Amino acid sequence: MSGPMTHITASSRLLATNSRCRYGWSPGPQFKPNSARTRAMASAVTPSSKTPSQQAVLGATAAFGLSVGAWLYMNQTKQRGIECEAAIPSPRISPDVPSKGETTTTETEMSRKMEQLVRRLQQEITTAVEELEGPDGGKFFRDSWVREEGGVGASCVLQEGKVFEKAGVNISIIASKAPEGMLKHMRARKRQGIDKGPYNMFVAGISLVMHPHNPMAPTVHANYRYFELVEENGDHSKPVASWFGGGCDLTPSYLFEEDAVHFHQTIKNACDAHDPAYYPKFKKWCDDYFDVKHRGERRGVGGIFFDDLEDRPADEIFEFVKDCGGSVVQQYVPIVKKRMNMPYTEENKKWQQLRRGRYVEFNLVHDRGTKFGLATPGVRIESVLMSLPLTARWEYCHTPVEGSPEAKLLEVLRNPREWV
Amino acid sequence: MSGPMTHITASSRLLATNSRCRYGWSPGPQFKPNSARTRAMASAVTPSSKTPSQQAVLGATAAFGLSVGAWLYMNQTKQRGIECEAAIPSPRISPDVPSKGETTTTETEMSRKMEQLVRRLQQEITTAVEELEGPDGGKFFRDSWVREEGGVGASCVLQEGKVFEKAGVNISIIASKAPEGMLKHMRARKRQGIDKGPYNMFVAGISLVMHPHNPMAPTVHANYRYFELVEENGDHSKPVASWFGGGCDLTPSYLFEEDAVHFHQTIKNACDAHDPAYYPKFKKWCDDYFDVKHRGERRGVGGIFFDDLEDRPADEIFEFVKDCGGSVVQQYVPIVKKRMNMPYTEENKKWQQLRRGRYVEFNLVHDRGTKFGLATPGVRIESVLMSLPLTARWEYCHTPVEGSPEAKLLEVLRNPREWV
Repeated sequence: MSGPMTHITASSRLLATNSRCRYGWSPGPQFKPNSARTRAMASAVTPSSKTPSQQAVLGATAAFGLSVGAWLYMNQTKQRGIECEAAIPSPRISPDVPSKGETTTTETEMSRKMEQLVRRLQQEITTAVEELEGPDGGKFFRDSWVREEGGVGASCVLQEGKVFEKAGVNISIIASKAPEGMLKHMRARKRQGIDKGPYNMFVAGISLVMHPHNPMAPTVHANYRYFELVEENGDHSKPVASWFGGGCDLTPSYLFEEDAVHFHQTIKNACDAHDPAYYPKFKKWCDDYFDVKHRGERRGVGGIFFDDLEDRPADEIFEFVKDCGGSVVQQYVPIVKKRMNMPYTEENKKWQQLRRGRYVEFNLVHDRGTKFGLATPGVRIESVLMSLPLTARWEYCHTPVEGSPEAKLLEVLRNPREWV
Repeated sequence: MSGPMTHITASSRLLATNSRCRYGWSPGPQFKPNSARTRAMASAVTPSSKTPSQQAVLGATAAFGLSVGAWLYMNQTKQRGIECEAAIPSPRISPDVPSKGETTTTETEMSRKMEQLVRRLQQEITTAVEELEGPDGGKFFRDSWVREEGGVGASCVLQEGKVFEKAGVNISIIASKAPEGMLKHMRARKRQGIDKGPYNMFVAGISLVMHPHNPMAPTVHANYRYFELVEENGDHSKPVASWFGGGCDLTPSYLFEEDAVHFHQTIKNACDAHDPAYYPKFKKWCDDYFDVKHRGERRGVGGIFFDDLEDRPADEIFEFVKDCGGSVVQQYVPIVKKRMNMPYTEENKKWQQLRRGRYVEFNLVHDRGTKFGLATPGVRIESVLMSLPLTARWEYCHTPVEGSPEAKLLEVLRNPREWV
């Protein structure tokens, strides 16, 4: 076992109970162990020093708030192999850079709450998915990584289960010094109150995507994240800036209007409990964001999307984000239960595969987080591309028959509707 | 039948014999007719006026020579449906804008030669592929389009044949006024001798990609193109600027060294007949270009790549490009013949699908022509994305077993070799 992994094991003693790794590595029905892979991942330790270009990209991150999600995957300089079943370590004391210790962290109540939230959501959601899979179904494959500068992440991926072709739920918790380049770009975006420095930062986020086998069951994506800065030489419990971002969207291959209504109504309820203006604003933002522009189609039937949210006290926004994250299971699981055993034809499956092709196109061509991740040297590429489906298809000039269910879906993708 | 199509039929009388459409629409074994598609394509007539943003993108095209390939797909404002078996019209007299007539064309010997070359190559290559498919195999589906400003194109696509999962051979022949924005960018690139104007331009290109079913048989891609400008009010037979671009590359899922050697030796022979410096220079350029940077892998075992080639009289470069294009069948067909009936396992097929996923990643994320096409309003997206495979796959953290044939391929993709 390598040095860094020993450190990780040591630091795992700091963990709270709810961050214990439930899953270890449990192969699904068709997901075979691969000893070479295990070895490769266990030994994947890249050089710890950042190149100037990496620094530059770090700085560029702040150019758009969304990239914080992608940024979370960066510079993950220590990886643990899948044979490690120990819990993921706390990011608050970096196990590999002990000299930095507490000086590089924030100590706000919000950072603790958000860290707990994303850890809890990852467990809740993966548990719900495994329940859908059933006792003989797929299990999540879990691996985690440590960012040398301070931070941890854990990916849970299920492939070729009984219900899901591929499902992934990632969390990242970063606590470190805020890179000067990043601050510079934040200032360029006219962020107030960060003209001094140096600052420490904290980022916590959860990101998930699920692609079911059955073409009647839709794909879902959700992503919630929090970012804060404290003055390194000031009060670590009082952020000088903080904001939230996130959203969720549903991507059916076949349109069941009641599913779109249920998905939107559930997230609208979460929004309305906090501000009646949220849902209409964030619903439109979602339609605008998940736009496969070169096809003239939206990716799916939408949901909500927001970024740089700091319009009220952080505690209030946290409650909103908590309710959104807490809605994921309720938004999605009832839909999958209804659709996962529906009969379908080979033609239905092909159409789903074509829609998966569009999903790939959106993620690789338009998604800002993915694009940023792909352009980042030293990125953990498997985390960035976890959202891609297991399989996809491209047919030349495929156009559905007029009036068909496939054409009905396209109509909605071309002209987003109000569902609730 | 719509007005523009009547025009096309009329203008088809101008055609030389070798541009007759051999294929019409002949369904392959699993390629089913789709009446809605036929109707949709026959009636696809978009507004003919260009928006300011389209003009801007037209201008941006010239920012890199490679984009001429993508540019060819732009503003294709009239499409013919697949039921039209008439030959594709000559671009030299635009059938829809008769008032422009000959004033918007060039009249160089080279433009005629290059037009004949790409038309002939399309026939040669599609014929060779159909021969591989055999009498009961897939046939090319052919459709063509007319660019209102002057220009034509023809796509030949074969899907789900016996040997090929998907194969496409596109040609485009553009003859029109050179947009001022494009000229501006060419000048910014320090192109000499185009500071006057207005100019007419001519572009002819062929682009092909073939994805076989058998994982032991590699994918091939090739692309050859020519660009020239004449003064609108000067001598239309003397270009003030002209250059060539192109290349070919081989993408195996399993490495057979003799195949890589054959592919490289054949194109090296074509290069060496014109300049012994060409092959080493263009081989390296190819390795540098087809780099899936975010994976640290080349797309395949390479070939050659060149752009903006104008280092000697155009006649001499034409002979070089003719020999390159003429080598495609010889480069590729013997390899496919050797591999197309080899036995393979389900695991081999999955690995091929993962490699197809990488192909998609390169084309959508890194290929300059594709990226430019995707960013272009009004683009004919099916032509831009014709190169994507029929099917592809993404598995989380897949790493081949050490010493396996899959690992052997990766080694070569990570460290490009000299093959000849």
